[in-house]
Amino acid sequence: MKIYVVGIGPGGLAFMTPQAKAAIESSQVVVGYTVYVDLVKELTLGKEVLSTPMKKEVDRCRLALESALDNKTVAFVCSGDAGVYGMAGIMLQVAENHPEVEIEIVPGITAACSGAALLGAPLIHDFAVISLSDLLTTWELIEKRLRLSAEADMSVVLYNPKSKKRCDYIDRAVKIMSEFKSMDTPAGYVKNIGRDGQKVVICTMKDLINNDDIDMFTTAFVGNSTTEIINGKMVTPRGYKNV
Amino acid sequence: MKIYVVGIGPGGLAFMTPQAKAAIESSQVVVGYTVYVDLVKELTLGKEVLSTPMKKEVDRCRLALESALDNKTVAFVCSGDAGVYGMAGIMLQVAENHPEVEIEIVPGITAACSGAALLGAPLIHDFAVISLSDLLTTWELIEKRLRLSAEADMSVVLYNPKSKKRCDYIDRAVKIMSEFKSMDTPAGYVKNIGRDGQKVVICTMKDLINNDDIDMFTTAFVGNSTTEIINGKMVTPRGYKNV
Repeated sequence: MKIYVVGIGPGGLAFMTPQAKAAIESSQVVVGYTVYVDLVKELTLGKEVLSTPMKKEVDRCRLALESALDNKTVAFVCSGDAGVYGMAGIMLQVAENHPEVEIEIVPGITAACSGAALLGAPLIHDFAVISLSDLLTTWELIEKRLRLSAEADMSVVLYNPKSKKRCDYIDRAVKIMSEFKSMDTPAGYVKNIGRDGQKVVICTMKDLINNDDIDMFTTAFVGNSTTEIINGKMVTPRGYKNV
Repeated sequence: MKIYVVGIGPGGLAFMTPQAKAAIESSQVVVGYTVYVDLVKELTLGKEVLSTPMKKEVDRCRLALESALDNKTVAFVCSGDAGVYGMAGIMLQVAENHPEVEIEIVPGITAACSGAALLGAPLIHDFAVISLSDLLTTWELIEKRLRLSAEADMSVVLYNPKSKKRCDYIDRAVKIMSEFKSMDTPAGYVKNIGRDGQKVVICTMKDLINNDDIDMFTTAFVGNSTTEIINGKMVTPRGYKNV
């Protein structure tokens, strides 16, 4: 009667903690979106594997819950961290009327951290993490968060910068942030982190506009007013002087 | 001539990725603050270990750089993630005039993610990460970021909520955020994540004030206006309806 909600990190097993690996290994059932289950395939051999298509998050949680109520130990795998736009919240919501089911959240490396590492050090100081997906949030609230984060001079990480239906959202986001951030602010983006086709680009904020390279598998980063490019890396100082 | 800046995660080896472990194993020299080097002691056997006291960050980077220039491979270890208030930025700054030294940042699980997992799912939607340390930042800027993040109705993670000299900073932070967040907003804090003495507390924002339990080894979390407590866990919904 236990569900582990497991963040597997950005890609293959090299980015997954031993805690996450042990959680999957100790489970009889593995639940997840097909692509993520495939990333941990070698850990799922001999286990019952239940997956549902994209966007069927609630169904996936119900599958996990039913297996747990059937006295099985379940590993519910998510890409990145289970707690950052991940399945931890919805799983706790779906299981609300079953407090007898133990739910343990196992953290993983989220794209803010794995992407930042590839770009250099853009998040060394205060930052905001904002998703541009308006499937479950109003665009007005997203705009407000972008504007206030830019006014606060925080570095900003943009999850879900684009999709087929939302191809100009990152353009709109950059224009809003430009009320408070210079268009020449160092920026960057990372595609397919830790997977085939990984691509790392360092640029300025204005280069994020009309950029066909950015897609739904991209995470974008915008620095603060002190961010600089050092030897091709994006660096936000914490404030150390006299280096 | 290579320096890995390695995020070792919150505590012991269970929270460190294979990528981080491999980076340390492939290095001849391990540099870091004594406490963090001790957390990975079993990986440092037979290696040259260089450590400096707390607050000597620039000195530590110079030690790492000197070893790299001496043609050694160096693992510079940090607690949590190397890129979130970590050493990645200062290392890139210190090595600015030595582009021949390759610097690879290896991400780890930061306290925002490891702490969130212990509390439930407070960071499922947009959030801000803010440090209350004013050693390297003005308090005015910290206040501004707190106020605007609260106005944006983001969940907020507070790093360095207190120190011996800054024992009322979290009280001041909560009061500022209360301009836009209800004092009854679900909140929580986690001490000594992944280490001896780990403690997890779920409460409301007002309970963070005058709280002697919160110290410099604590990370504090405040939800947004939709955050709720479900079966003793802090949950910020992403917006899924009809669960």
